Amino acid sequence: MATLSVPSALPDVAEDVEQLHKAFSGWGTNEDLIITILAHRNAYQRKLIREVYTSTYGEDLLKTLDKELTNDFERIVHLFTLDPPERDAFLANEATKKFTSSNWVLIEIACARSSDDLFNARRAYHVRFKKSIEEDVAQHTTGDFRKLLVALVTSFRYEGPEVNTHLAKSDAKILHEKISDKAYSDDDLIRIIATRSKAQLSATLNTYNNSYGHAITKDLKEDPKDDFLKLLRATIKCLTCPEKYFEKLLRLAVNKMGTDESALTRVVATRAEVDMQRIKEEYYRRNSVHLDHAIKKDTHGDYEKMLIELVGAENA
Amino acid sequence: MATLSVPSALPDVAEDVEQLHKAFSGWGTNEDLIITILAHRNAYQRKLIREVYTSTYGEDLLKTLDKELTNDFERIVHLFTLDPPERDAFLANEATKKFTSSNWVLIEIACARSSDDLFNARRAYHVRFKKSIEEDVAQHTTGDFRKLLVALVTSFRYEGPEVNTHLAKSDAKILHEKISDKAYSDDDLIRIIATRSKAQLSATLNTYNNSYGHAITKDLKEDPKDDFLKLLRATIKCLTCPEKYFEKLLRLAVNKMGTDESALTRVVATRAEVDMQRIKEEYYRRNSVHLDHAIKKDTHGDYEKMLIELVGAENA
Repeated sequence: MATLSVPSALPDVAEDVEQLHKAFSGWGTNEDLIITILAHRNAYQRKLIREVYTSTYGEDLLKTLDKELTNDFERIVHLFTLDPPERDAFLANEATKKFTSSNWVLIEIACARSSDDLFNARRAYHVRFKKSIEEDVAQHTTGDFRKLLVALVTSFRYEGPEVNTHLAKSDAKILHEKISDKAYSDDDLIRIIATRSKAQLSATLNTYNNSYGHAITKDLKEDPKDDFLKLLRATIKCLTCPEKYFEKLLRLAVNKMGTDESALTRVVATRAEVDMQRIKEEYYRRNSVHLDHAIKKDTHGDYEKMLIELVGAENA
Repeated sequence: MATLSVPSALPDVAEDVEQLHKAFSGWGTNEDLIITILAHRNAYQRKLIREVYTSTYGEDLLKTLDKELTNDFERIVHLFTLDPPERDAFLANEATKKFTSSNWVLIEIACARSSDDLFNARRAYHVRFKKSIEEDVAQHTTGDFRKLLVALVTSFRYEGPEVNTHLAKSDAKILHEKISDKAYSDDDLIRIIATRSKAQLSATLNTYNNSYGHAITKDLKEDPKDDFLKLLRATIKCLTCPEKYFEKLLRLAVNKMGTDESALTRVVATRAEVDMQRIKEEYYRRNSVHLDHAIKKDTHGDYEKMLIELVGAENA
C-alpha cells in the first residue's frame, strides 16, 4: 500500500502548472507550494503536469526544478517527479557509472519491481540513454557481480501464483549443495535465483528452510563482510520480502552517524507510491519508533517536509 | 519485405470463419479452401479469424486444424496461423524440450526479431507455459551453450541507428584478443555479442574486418565442426544479415538427401510476413534457382501448395 495522498478535489493540470511557475517567480522560490503540489500527485498526474509545463513555458519542469532547488531537497523532488520507469532508468544509469558493492539500486530495480515495471525501466533506458541497461551493467562490472547482476536485470519472471512443489524440492537441493560447497556464484544457483517466479522461489526457500533447518540467508552469511554474499542476500530479500529489505535500508540510513540521505531519498521516492505503508509498519514493528519520527529527528528544512509529506505523518 | 499476399477485396471475418468451418465438414477436408484463406491473411486478420471461430463454434481453430490435417501440411498451417509472438513462444518451448546443437530456432527468435518482438514472445511464453523462456532455456542447457543462449534470449537491445566508433574499435580489439586466445565463450565476448545494438555490432564487426583482415565469422571457423562455434557464427549472421542466414538454412534444407522439412517449414512460416522477399532474392543470387522452383522440386501435395502460396511463385 502506498503512502502517497492525492487530494480528492484536484485542481486541473493547467492550474498546477501555473502555480508551479509562480513558485519559481519573483524573489526566492516557494518551496512549500512545490511540495504541496508535487508530493500529492500520482505518477500519471505528475507526467501530465510535466508535459503541460513544457508546452506552456517551453522548458522542462525537471530542469527548472534543478535550477531552483538544491541538495537533498532538489534530489527528492527531482526523483519523485520523474515517471517511475524513467526514474528507474535514471537510477540504474547512475549506478552503472559508479558501481560499488553497496550500491544496491540495481538489485532493487531488478527484484523489487514487477516484471512489467522492470521491462518498462529497460525501455525507458533505451529512450534516455540510447543503449540497453544490460549493456551498461555488463560493461561496468566483472566476475561474479556481473554474472548475477546481468542475469537479474535481464530477467522477465513469470508472475503467476502457480507453484511446482517437485521443482521446489529439487531447486532447494541444488541451492543447498552449492552453498555447502561455498560455490556461491555457481551457474545453477544464479539460474534459480535469477529466473524462477517469485512464488516458485518462495516455495523453494521455504522447502530449503524446512529441509535443512536454516533460512538460506543465514547460510549465506559464512563471511558477513563478503560483498558478493551481501549482494546475494539483498537479492533474495528483495525478491521474497521487499518491505523487510527496505525497512532495513531505512533503519541503517537514519541510524548512522550522519544520515545516509542517498538511501533515504531513494527509498522514499521509489516506494511512496507502491508499498511504503507496509514498509512503515515493518519499521515500527522492528524499531518501536514511527518512521516519520525517525526521519524528523534526522533531517530538516524542505527536505524533511517533502519526505514527511510522502511517507505521511503518524498521529502518535 | 514480406511475400505474404492479402487480397485487396477481403471477405469479412464471419465469412472466412464460415468457409473454414465448411472446409472441415462433410466427406474429407477441403485443403484448398483452407490454403486460400489462411495463407492470405495477415497476422491481425488470422488472430481475428481464430477469435471469431472460437466464439462461433466453441472450438479453437488450431485444435480443429490439428485434427483435420496431417504431417508437414498440418505443421505449416498450424505455425503460420499462430500469432507471431505465440508462434515464437511455441517454437522456443519445443526447442528447450529437445535442445540439440543444430536446433537454432532459439538463436533466430533472440537475434532475427526486433527487440519488441522478442519481448512479445517472452510475454506470450508466460501466458502459454506459465514460466519464463529464460527459465526453460537455462534449465535445459549447460556450460557455454547456456551462457550464450540465456544472454541472447534475455536481451533487449537498443535499436537506434547511433554508432560509437570509439566503442566499435575497443570492442573489435576485445573480440580479436579473445578469438586469438580461442576464448570463444569468454564473458566479454559474449557480453559484446549479446548486449550491443545491431547497428553498433555491425560497426564493430566492420572495424574487426578492416583492422585484422578477416571477417569475424572466418576467424570463428578454427574447428568448423565445433558446435559452439557453429552457434556463435549463426548468432552473428542472424544479428547482422538475417536474410543470408535464412537463405543458407533454406539451401541446406532443400539440397539435403531428403528435405529438412522442419527447417523449411519454420523459415517459411516465420519469415513470409517479414522479409521473405529479401531471402528469395538472396536465394536466387546464391543458387541461380528461384526458391519456389527449389521448393516445388522437393515437396508435394498440400504442403507444397501452402509453401508456394506463402513464398509466392516467380513467373520465370
